[in-house]
Amino acid sequence: MRMYDIILKKRQGFELATEEINFFVRGYTAGEIPDYQAAALLMAIFFQGLNTRETADLTLAMAGSGDRVDLSGIPGCKVDKHSTGGVGDKTTLVLAPLVAAAGVPVAKMSGRGLGHTGGTVDKLESIPGFKVTLAPEDFVRQVREVGVAVVAQTGNLVPADKKLYALRDVTATVDSIPLIASSVMSKKIAAGAEAIVLDVKAGSGAFMRTVEEACTLARAMVAIGRQAGRKTVAVITDMDQPLGFAVGNALEVREAIETLSGRGPSDLKELCLVLGGHMLVLAGAVKDVAEGVDRLSGLLERGRALDKFREMVKAQGGDPRVADEPHLLPEASYREQVKAETDGYVAGIHTERVGRVAMLLGAGRKTKEDTIDPSVGIVLHKKLGDRVRTGDVLATLHFNSAENLSAARQLIAGAFTLTSSVPGVKKLVHGVIDENDIMD
Amino acid sequence: MRMYDIILKKRQGFELATEEINFFVRGYTAGEIPDYQAAALLMAIFFQGLNTRETADLTLAMAGSGDRVDLSGIPGCKVDKHSTGGVGDKTTLVLAPLVAAAGVPVAKMSGRGLGHTGGTVDKLESIPGFKVTLAPEDFVRQVREVGVAVVAQTGNLVPADKKLYALRDVTATVDSIPLIASSVMSKKIAAGAEAIVLDVKAGSGAFMRTVEEACTLARAMVAIGRQAGRKTVAVITDMDQPLGFAVGNALEVREAIETLSGRGPSDLKELCLVLGGHMLVLAGAVKDVAEGVDRLSGLLERGRALDKFREMVKAQGGDPRVADEPHLLPEASYREQVKAETDGYVAGIHTERVGRVAMLLGAGRKTKEDTIDPSVGIVLHKKLGDRVRTGDVLATLHFNSAENLSAARQLIAGAFTLTSSVPGVKKLVHGVIDENDIMD
Repeated sequence: MRMYDIILKKRQGFELATEEINFFVRGYTAGEIPDYQAAALLMAIFFQGLNTRETADLTLAMAGSGDRVDLSGIPGCKVDKHSTGGVGDKTTLVLAPLVAAAGVPVAKMSGRGLGHTGGTVDKLESIPGFKVTLAPEDFVRQVREVGVAVVAQTGNLVPADKKLYALRDVTATVDSIPLIASSVMSKKIAAGAEAIVLDVKAGSGAFMRTVEEACTLARAMVAIGRQAGRKTVAVITDMDQPLGFAVGNALEVREAIETLSGRGPSDLKELCLVLGGHMLVLAGAVKDVAEGVDRLSGLLERGRALDKFREMVKAQGGDPRVADEPHLLPEASYREQVKAETDGYVAGIHTERVGRVAMLLGAGRKTKEDTIDPSVGIVLHKKLGDRVRTGDVLATLHFNSAENLSAARQLIAGAFTLTSSVPGVKKLVHGVIDENDIMD
Repeated sequence: MRMYDIILKKRQGFELATEEINFFVRGYTAGEIPDYQAAALLMAIFFQGLNTRETADLTLAMAGSGDRVDLSGIPGCKVDKHSTGGVGDKTTLVLAPLVAAAGVPVAKMSGRGLGHTGGTVDKLESIPGFKVTLAPEDFVRQVREVGVAVVAQTGNLVPADKKLYALRDVTATVDSIPLIASSVMSKKIAAGAEAIVLDVKAGSGAFMRTVEEACTLARAMVAIGRQAGRKTVAVITDMDQPLGFAVGNALEVREAIETLSGRGPSDLKELCLVLGGHMLVLAGAVKDVAEGVDRLSGLLERGRALDKFREMVKAQGGDPRVADEPHLLPEASYREQVKAETDGYVAGIHTERVGRVAMLLGAGRKTKEDTIDPSVGIVLHKKLGDRVRTGDVLATLHFNSAENLSAARQLIAGAFTLTSSVPGVKKLVHGVIDENDIMD
């Protein structure tokens, strides 16, 4: 088998055989196939696509390219959740303890943030003492004993995806549906997921700008799940404004704690209940999503989700008092309010720009090597549809250095679009795609 | 400027600016742009194409990437000829002295053979003592004094094309019209050509299998010539059978000498007259091709072309007696005839296969490092349309080692397609494309 022939075959629009895909993934991971041949194949895939079978084969080949997390020591169906990434997305911080409180084990590996979207692991690290790196046996033991653990990826997980993603990033081949779908799903499968709930974001703060694009990606991932024997459900959700009000690591943990206490922003709460409801269904804990939402609402109200969060923080070496005394989280030295200069209604929030402002203030990384400041960020005071009067506070910037402040102020002020008429109401959940929605 | 943005722009189907193309060629030649980004761009170009302006820019950027041959010391218009490659194509051996005999200087750089098509330089080296490497000043002096020199490429000519061609060869991006066209034309321009006659082959022994494909490539090259200010004419010629009868280095020199003597195969003679006629027109030596053909025919008949060949061989250190005593050329130790097993007419000759048989016998290179045997090869006895009776000799194999003999026999026998009905006559020249045929 020659890599040249595989490139040519795909370039000509033919379907690649399973063995050809395995040959490529194995050879590329081992360094036997050079970057330039992989780059040519990726660009050919961009133009010619991959069908469902090829995409599933690519996913499984990547999932098998390195270590696999062994969750067999944890009883019950292991359900994972994945978000395609958004601004202010602190869902995992709420969802993991919430679902665990319902008796469904959550063994979650999360990523760090890069670019304008934050990472769950970075957010957790803003909790004093919190350890995101656990030995595999400690990870499994904690889930068995506490019911939940959220850790950073360790070991040599999906090296094929790491290498391919880095290559796609510099060869303009990132935005290919089969390549995105296989990248996400390979990581979930290697992380031990038996069932997967996907939160596919659509909007100005998401990778997929339209609901239609998000549905296409969702269908591709659900189809992979079916081919790979993993029950998979995708929820298409709105990312036309940040989720909740807080953007920035410690600020988001604080908002997650409020939500776990039964308060918190309504959109964040709704999203956690819907995604959690699907997780309970896939785990076989409830008969349908409505029952799942009911059960989870009760757990929030009765403080059980917050109890589980406290347990998790303690088990991972963090200070559990943050659950009740959020001022123990790092706080920025300075605050500055950005105010409205006209009257109107919020008709748009340029979400990616809000994420970039958080990065400017030090909350995110431009490159993998950057360090982040856990205390800085933005708290929005107005969201889509809200009435605004001149002088109202639109957002508060939390910062430690005035270096980028004036740029940040301007960007945030410009991120809000105000209109004189009342804008239509945006739905948070645009739809659900499961195996029944996938054509053969 | 970032290479990433250039890849993305082309991938999205936009036109690249001159500066972007220059940035790519300069950066890639200097080793600053990695192979994997160049590979991604090449594949994007394969799918999205390049327009005439982009192709001309790419050509000029490549032509300027290394040394340029300075032919200003030679008076008159320097006309170069290029063949897209075929089996048994010994045209340059005849054409160079023939055109020089008409008073038009020929300063020709030729390549070595790779794969199933032979190289002019390899053929010349089968003449005892012939030197294909001349210092630039000796090259120019010889053309001034003798009127003709044919040498191997020297110096750092078009390094961008060398690097890009090697990359295309392993990334399945060779067969892209703008990439082929710019590769050919950049080499001609760097070699000092002021006007160019292109022999674009079509058929089973050529890179372009159909006349339509050959015309597309020809139009692309003529358009580059116009944009680059080089008068360019393309002649579309047949390569559905080897040119002449001989395939193999010394065998082809012998056939070229016969042709220079006014004998030789009619197809080879016709092709040399037509291409030479166009060269005389571009050089301003005659008013039209018909006049050029007339003048060149006279030179062949009166032995002037052979005189010029003798002079050239002597000037380049070769034994000029070969012009009159071809048995001084290397001859293989053994011969074997391949005979027809049925009656019929030759309706097809699988030309690429004939080239591969020559390679099997040792006349060509599979890789750049292979050495070649100048004496071996094939002499055909039948060509398209010829009547064949059982037992007639189809071809004679000339060889020194019996190693691949049975494979060669079988391949050659199978390369002939015989039919019971008289096949239609094939034209040698399918058409001519010049600047007037190019749309803006």
